[in-house]
Amino acid sequence: MEKIVLAYSGGLDTSVAIPWLIEKGYDVIAVVLDVGQSGKDMDMIQQKASQVGAVQSIVIDAQQEFAESYVAPVIKANAMYEGEYPLVSALSRPLIIEKLVKIAHENAATAIAHGSTGKGNDQVRFEAAIHALDATMKIEAPIRDFHWSREEEIDYALAHNVPVPIGKASPYSIDENLWGRANEAGILENPWNQAPADAYALTVAAEEAPDNPLFIDVTFKQGLPVALNDTKMELADLIHELNEVAGAHGIGRIDHIENRLVGIKSREIYEAPAAAVLMTAHKDLEDLTLERDVAHFKPIVEQQLANLIYNALWISPLFDALLSFIDETQKVVNGVVKMKLFKGQAIAVARKSDTNSLYDENLATYTSADSFDQEAAQGFIKMWTLPGTVYEQVNHVHSEANLSKLKD
Amino acid sequence: MEKIVLAYSGGLDTSVAIPWLIEKGYDVIAVVLDVGQSGKDMDMIQQKASQVGAVQSIVIDAQQEFAESYVAPVIKANAMYEGEYPLVSALSRPLIIEKLVKIAHENAATAIAHGSTGKGNDQVRFEAAIHALDATMKIEAPIRDFHWSREEEIDYALAHNVPVPIGKASPYSIDENLWGRANEAGILENPWNQAPADAYALTVAAEEAPDNPLFIDVTFKQGLPVALNDTKMELADLIHELNEVAGAHGIGRIDHIENRLVGIKSREIYEAPAAAVLMTAHKDLEDLTLERDVAHFKPIVEQQLANLIYNALWISPLFDALLSFIDETQKVVNGVVKMKLFKGQAIAVARKSDTNSLYDENLATYTSADSFDQEAAQGFIKMWTLPGTVYEQVNHVHSEANLSKLKD
Amino acid sequence: MEKIVLAYSGGLDTSVAIPWLIEKGYDVIAVVLDVGQSGKDMDMIQQKASQVGAVQSIVIDAQQEFAESYVAPVIKANAMYEGEYPLVSALSRPLIIEKLVKIAHENAATAIAHGSTGKGNDQVRFEAAIHALDATMKIEAPIRDFHWSREEEIDYALAHNVPVPIGKASPYSIDENLWGRANEAGILENPWNQAPADAYALTVAAEEAPDNPLFIDVTFKQGLPVALNDTKMELADLIHELNEVAGAHGIGRIDHIENRLVGIKSREIYEAPAAAVLMTAHKDLEDLTLERDVAHFKPIVEQQLANLIYNALWISPLFDALLSFIDETQKVVNGVVKMKLFKGQAIAVARKSDTNSLYDENLATYTSADSFDQEAAQGFIKMWTLPGTVYEQVNHVHSEANLSKLKD
Amino acid sequence: MEKIVLAYSGGLDTSVAIPWLIEKGYDVIAVVLDVGQSGKDMDMIQQKASQVGAVQSIVIDAQQEFAESYVAPVIKANAMYEGEYPLVSALSRPLIIEKLVKIAHENAATAIAHGSTGKGNDQVRFEAAIHALDATMKIEAPIRDFHWSREEEIDYALAHNVPVPIGKASPYSIDENLWGRANEAGILENPWNQAPADAYALTVAAEEAPDNPLFIDVTFKQGLPVALNDTKMELADLIHELNEVAGAHGIGRIDHIENRLVGIKSREIYEAPAAAVLMTAHKDLEDLTLERDVAHFKPIVEQQLANLIYNALWISPLFDALLSFIDETQKVVNGVVKMKLFKGQAIAVARKSDTNSLYDENLATYTSADSFDQEAAQGFIKMWTLPGTVYEQVNHVHSEANLSKLKD
Repeated sequence: MEKIVLAYSGGLDTSVAIPWLIEKGYDVIAVVLDVGQSGKDMDMIQQKASQVGAVQSIVIDAQQEFAESYVAPVIKANAMYEGEYPLVSALSRPLIIEKLVKIAHENAATAIAHGSTGKGNDQVRFEAAIHALDATMKIEAPIRDFHWSREEEIDYALAHNVPVPIGKASPYSIDENLWGRANEAGILENPWNQAPADAYALTVAAEEAPDNPLFIDVTFKQGLPVALNDTKMELADLIHELNEVAGAHGIGRIDHIENRLVGIKSREIYEAPAAAVLMTAHKDLEDLTLERDVAHFKPIVEQQLANLIYNALWISPLFDALLSFIDETQKVVNGVVKMKLFKGQAIAVARKSDTNSLYDENLATYTSADSFDQEAAQGFIKMWTLPGTVYEQVNHVHSEANLSKLKD
Repeated sequence: MEKIVLAYSGGLDTSVAIPWLIEKGYDVIAVVLDVGQSGKDMDMIQQKASQVGAVQSIVIDAQQEFAESYVAPVIKANAMYEGEYPLVSALSRPLIIEKLVKIAHENAATAIAHGSTGKGNDQVRFEAAIHALDATMKIEAPIRDFHWSREEEIDYALAHNVPVPIGKASPYSIDENLWGRANEAGILENPWNQAPADAYALTVAAEEAPDNPLFIDVTFKQGLPVALNDTKMELADLIHELNEVAGAHGIGRIDHIENRLVGIKSREIYEAPAAAVLMTAHKDLEDLTLERDVAHFKPIVEQQLANLIYNALWISPLFDALLSFIDETQKVVNGVVKMKLFKGQAIAVARKSDTNSLYDENLATYTSADSFDQEAAQGFIKMWTLPGTVYEQVNHVHSEANLSKLKD
Repeated sequence: MEKIVLAYSGGLDTSVAIPWLIEKGYDVIAVVLDVGQSGKDMDMIQQKASQVGAVQSIVIDAQQEFAESYVAPVIKANAMYEGEYPLVSALSRPLIIEKLVKIAHENAATAIAHGSTGKGNDQVRFEAAIHALDATMKIEAPIRDFHWSREEEIDYALAHNVPVPIGKASPYSIDENLWGRANEAGILENPWNQAPADAYALTVAAEEAPDNPLFIDVTFKQGLPVALNDTKMELADLIHELNEVAGAHGIGRIDHIENRLVGIKSREIYEAPAAAVLMTAHKDLEDLTLERDVAHFKPIVEQQLANLIYNALWISPLFDALLSFIDETQKVVNGVVKMKLFKGQAIAVARKSDTNSLYDENLATYTSADSFDQEAAQGFIKMWTLPGTVYEQVNHVHSEANLSKLKD
Repeated sequence: MEKIVLAYSGGLDTSVAIPWLIEKGYDVIAVVLDVGQSGKDMDMIQQKASQVGAVQSIVIDAQQEFAESYVAPVIKANAMYEGEYPLVSALSRPLIIEKLVKIAHENAATAIAHGSTGKGNDQVRFEAAIHALDATMKIEAPIRDFHWSREEEIDYALAHNVPVPIGKASPYSIDENLWGRANEAGILENPWNQAPADAYALTVAAEEAPDNPLFIDVTFKQGLPVALNDTKMELADLIHELNEVAGAHGIGRIDHIENRLVGIKSREIYEAPAAAVLMTAHKDLEDLTLERDVAHFKPIVEQQLANLIYNALWISPLFDALLSFIDETQKVVNGVVKMKLFKGQAIAVARKSDTNSLYDENLATYTSADSFDQEAAQGFIKMWTLPGTVYEQVNHVHSEANLSKLKD
């Protein structure tokens, strides 16, 4: 029998996939990664896979690795897809596949299975990562191949001793990890419908948040947060902590009409409380510490990186080159940002960098002696405006327009 | 006597400039533009210029023109300097100069005077615009040339019958127009100091904002807001209205460490309530109506346009070309966005476009028949990932890395 | 019987497609566009389609339209895919489809057929254009669906009275239009093999070109060539003329390893003599007439436009917006460029613009009076280098490195 | 007496600067760097400085360092300013200043002098580098401050025992190093004048080049040339060799109307024979070895890097970050390119990479099995064109246009 490694979640879809793969002739090795999805009992998930028929069931705690290797680049790059989405689900896919390929190699498995449908981005992310790490690996995508209605899936589950959740199915399709929670489908499909209260799980409504703001100091070292209120923390722990604190203040809700890689627009509800705080704080500290030309070119690299990550190309040579650029810029991003959390909003209200601030009162004084500035400014203006001045003298585009207005 | 046209504000600096220019041998024509600065008595300002010695004193109501020709491109382009500043002061400078050059030509004046210092961006913006519209026009910058201390300026004012404001001078340097208010200097110079309450004038603190959210529907036509809650309004009036409404909800405060054109970092406190609402709403409607490739390239044009505007290059051929791009994209940006204003935040919670939504339930159904999607997805994934797969097969960058981890 | 409109070339593949489509149940309307492919007898092609079974056979002379609407944007945008390929084949596809869709609508046809294989870019270009112009149109791609060997195709042809070319088949796969000629496959598939002499048809080898250079003046108006040596010509005629003249000097050969849209690298041999002359001349005239900021941003737009065209997205909203940008920049691109054609190379050796040159001896004198320049330069340098200077004072990245080298 | 370190060339301007600086109260340390300028007798230059009054005269052979640290990034980045100029002079300035600052520190000198005028780019490059390496260093720019006519300069020279070149002064202003030669001014100032024969020194006219082509194999390792015809060479030696060989074939002439940093357009004649060969070969090898997304984003980084170098910002944090990107991409740029040198042109006619070619006949076969490709292509096309198709279905921009044409 050939072996297959399945990206297992414990839910109905990937549970049903186990007998389906067995019927296709595979020995199934189920693997679930703990990347910080909240409220999951990993032991129970592990047992469930075995009970449904997996020959092996493996749980891996990958939270620290997820934070340090997959979330960290997003923070350093201010990477927001389409300016709004901090790339929650897109981050866990390459890590999951890296682990699955390793387990496949260790167990001489010839195939990997994932639980994505045919309409989303994740199928591309899973398969791109598999191809990149082992182009000879076979891929199974049972949910994409089922062609089942909900009822047919439940019938199949019952017929194969797969536990079926009792009660009405949730109207939502959820994916969650340490960096946030994604929610799509159901009532959300009409963009003119406001997201209902039960679409959210990590955040309270802004109206229900505390009436007093919370101030929190975030310390960064080389572009990454290392302490909250001067208490040093591992990145995964710091994110967990901020998710709770900021979520309680209603922070991190995102309602985004987004362009999927597969060519359609979808409406997504995200929650990413820690991301809202950390990415705002990080950008604010960059404003203080990045030199102007770096600050003005970096957004182009950031957008490219965000698109790559979203578009399933984490494992790619362009990703590596863009990250080299980003890492080089972060050496000076050291300091503290005071964040105010209040009623749904995380705002940077103060910031300092003892070692790398390019805004310094002494320097300001040094560089602004009146006698110096004045002449410099005039010379600067002459040369800065010279190309435009010559252009107008030759072409009279705006000056003629101006004169002709006079004549009207 | 040569005539000079002075960009007059009514404040001490430009008032003192009048006798100073007279002593330099000019007849002074003072011009003040009403671009929506709040709380200014234009009649009194007009009288003051005459009283201080101007041979002519002119007030121009330029609010609608400012909104339609200078604010409108910023909205359509989502133009935020360094991702944060909606370009308040940078917008009025080219308009002021356009009017001043026209008046200079009408009155055969040979020079234009502005009231900027030698350390800021506005001197460049004023002079760039003058050069672009009439390269032969002489420029006077009295405040940059005074070299006076505050005390010396007051002594000069008293000696020349220029009214001096009673009481302690404001610690702030303010510029304001319809689109917002800029505030710098004083205590703000230390970025670790939080901005004090009196730094703000158009907005209440989020803590003092109403406890109930306000929902407001903003209707856009070709990328510009044309109605609030279905009531059609001229753009200038709509912005005025939103400044009041959103300011009362504490919306539009910006605390920005910014890279000035003249090479230094400064810390700026802005208030732009209407901008916060309109630019969020506009981007949200674009998410619904712009095709993906447009949505992904437009930010590069937007950033370039924001930089140009900030950097004194409004009147330039690149501006015109970038705006042609932007205008072409906006033809389909028609629809309504429901904004929620609450405790300092303006959020898009729903949106629709009867004519141009690319997210449509019928289309979604049409384009997602399962049998079609599934094969399409597999084919798409193969070709999308082919370059990366071949790269890895040849170079083994990530797959080798992965294998070597196995051996550890 | 349903009707289908076939993009017909007269070659074996699309001739065999006619009986194949008839067997599938279609009435076939064959359409061939004359887009300047050399050496084709359009009457014979038209007759052949009828003879093989087409119910209608239509020839359209589209040369001027091809030049003015499809080649012109490429010239104005200096559009070269991957910096090397002037987009020959990619240009004719949207024009062909525009005509075919029109004919389909006029004849109530329900489908369109094209002759591309499954490994190239053109299938995507044909189908993208069809989808964009009529999403309900059915598409047939017989060559992609044949699954025939060369022998099987010939057997099918003989059995269906389709004339089979006598003698050995050409080892090359050719596409040609007014703007150039593309050649792939065969011996060329090894990139270490030099292209053999018979791979070329429009150009002589540089070694065999005349020993004396030819100088030719190209006049541009708004970015487009309008005259050769002061003789006004329609664009299509001008390109024809230059193809002959420049081809005789060995100009326009391109040997390019290129990234196809479908994910593989291919090796292409192109000939584009007129393009080599015109695009060099156009860029040279832009150097004289475009303002600096325009000149420095336009390449980003140009690359995006070239990628769009190559990647089958001619008919797209991003194309329209990019072209608006390009058109706005071309208003000042007026003048004459003297080109030297010699032994395979087209070089701009002189250029002038009576109306729009930004390089003008009078202006140069005007703007360079020594007393003015000197102070201006010092002031400019201070402000230009200020961000970097402050960065180094704070961070000592390069100055420390420099000092530490001293200590070694 | 304060000490000053002078960037000395041996020419009249910097020789006259020595007594001028002495009169200003300095002890002058003259430093000349050998960066590969041809035909210079370094010993004589060294003696001349002493003879004219320098307290120390230092010659430094910096050719290898220049090649490896300053030319190498340009090759790897395909860095051409405005697509045409391989950045010859801009490269030597930061190296010269690095050496001068080091000598200044070793000798406790307080100032550095350079010989640039007030109208060019080099003054900015020299001073930017000085500021970056030691912001406290004083700067003298005697030639910018002279305000002398040619006659006055000669009179001053004669009066201070500075040798004056006999005969008519050259009409040209030349700068040269290993990477090429720049020539401006004189008759060249009219862009409609063709450059005369005596404007060139490193290249023969194409007409006078040999009638037989020369083929040369250039081997690259990690993006840098390491061998010619399989003979390993240090980079500086390889460039020297190619300058001779390619110059003899008339290769490397550039006639460029260029936008100077100081705001004016200038006309420059460059010769860079080795650059013409190496940069063409390098780009060709990248076409074979770079993955598509890398190949398509790198030009944006390349242009930014070229602009930075031209604009005096070699020593800057953005340069370092961009170079990190470039270096990461070059790991796979290994292989051999066969270049054909003939009558002024260097063309890549064949290329191979044993280890990193992404164009490989086996892979091509692997990835192109007909049954696989066909379905993949159809699926790919559906998803690739979906955003545009939906856009047209909703907005009817092109399809309506098409239909309305029908009705005409």
